Amino acid sequence: MGEADVIVHDRLVGEGVLDLARRDAGRIFVGKARANHCMPQEEINALIVRLAREGKRVVRLKGGDPFVFGRGGEEVEACRAAGVPCEVVPGVTAALACAAATGIPLTHRDHARTVTFATGHTRDGRLDLDFAALARPGQTLAVYMGVTTLAALRDGLVAAGLPAGTPAALVERGGTDAQRVLRGTLDDVVARAPAWHAGGPALLLAGGVAAETEEVRLAA
Amino acid sequence: MGEADVIVHDRLVGEGVLDLARRDAGRIFVGKARANHCMPQEEINALIVRLAREGKRVVRLKGGDPFVFGRGGEEVEACRAAGVPCEVVPGVTAALACAAATGIPLTHRDHARTVTFATGHTRDGRLDLDFAALARPGQTLAVYMGVTTLAALRDGLVAAGLPAGTPAALVERGGTDAQRVLRGTLDDVVARAPAWHAGGPALLLAGGVAAETEEVRLAA
Repeated sequence: MGEADVIVHDRLVGEGVLDLARRDAGRIFVGKARANHCMPQEEINALIVRLAREGKRVVRLKGGDPFVFGRGGEEVEACRAAGVPCEVVPGVTAALACAAATGIPLTHRDHARTVTFATGHTRDGRLDLDFAALARPGQTLAVYMGVTTLAALRDGLVAAGLPAGTPAALVERGGTDAQRVLRGTLDDVVARAPAWHAGGPALLLAGGVAAETEEVRLAA
Repeated sequence: MGEADVIVHDRLVGEGVLDLARRDAGRIFVGKARANHCMPQEEINALIVRLAREGKRVVRLKGGDPFVFGRGGEEVEACRAAGVPCEVVPGVTAALACAAATGIPLTHRDHARTVTFATGHTRDGRLDLDFAALARPGQTLAVYMGVTTLAALRDGLVAAGLPAGTPAALVERGGTDAQRVLRGTLDDVVARAPAWHAGGPALLLAGGVAAETEEVRLAA
């Protein structure tokens, strides 16, 4: 980031990240703000390509990992299509950050031989998820950004065979000083979530691993 | 890591990581070496607890993320059971590193609404995988450490309904200067892998996203 001419960034987990950039680099905020609509993805793609064609070195800065629900794939496609060379730097995606910060392992020799990341975002107004696959036993589920759709998620999973008593944890602002964790069974967590949720980004972890209930302090 | 008294480490992706540690911190290697057996997990757990009880600040250093096929969960359990306080620092797990380094996004609005991490390690001599779940469409599969079991993996997936023509990429030493990538259909990659593989750690990515065939240079 030290060589950037311009930084196109989202809302970030830590404000300190931008302090690592060159002071004279331009900054363009394209992420979601509470009351505003974010810039449409197509406009972000076009912006990155336009800046690059002006000869600028562009850093596209996101929270988490750009290739896990980050739409980085679409941005890379746009760059390729325009002949703009690019590099991708991986990051710590929210599921990994929340797992570490809560002491809930995503895989475990005894009760989670796979882990699946899904999103609680809707498409055309409904959850676009393969509940039959997500309800299979022996895995950990990490569901991104699903607070408003938690009840629909629970209904879909339980209808597909996942026990309502599956251990779960809802992690709000995971990995930050403001982290909060709601633990219980899937049913219990989903029932209590609306009153509990304070409006921050949240991630749901579900599976046998979430029964690891003792909190581990997050490393600074 | 600057405050560690002793560092209990695996074989690491980059040697430079240990240079960040205090020069006078002790180092204990417990990971796999080519010709040796690694220390059994139970011994590693006991070692960490013993060192902590001697009053030492212990860093348990792994490649990737400790909670994704890293057995960090078992080590945290051992610490909890012994009353040893611990903190977990997340890392960039191999799937994320390989995705970034190959330009293959793990999720994509158009053809991967979930991503599943599985392991090609065997238990009691066979692949302990839920092929019915892994073969479902609309997801990306990232299979860790599966070179010797690739044929069994392919057979299981195809028998469960995954098309043999599913795009795939086998990434060896992903994210390092020695990275190599074998691309093709699942069937093709598995057939060519034995002759191609140079003995390094490898990860298989399979799904529509792997059709993103143009290489993206890894950021330094």
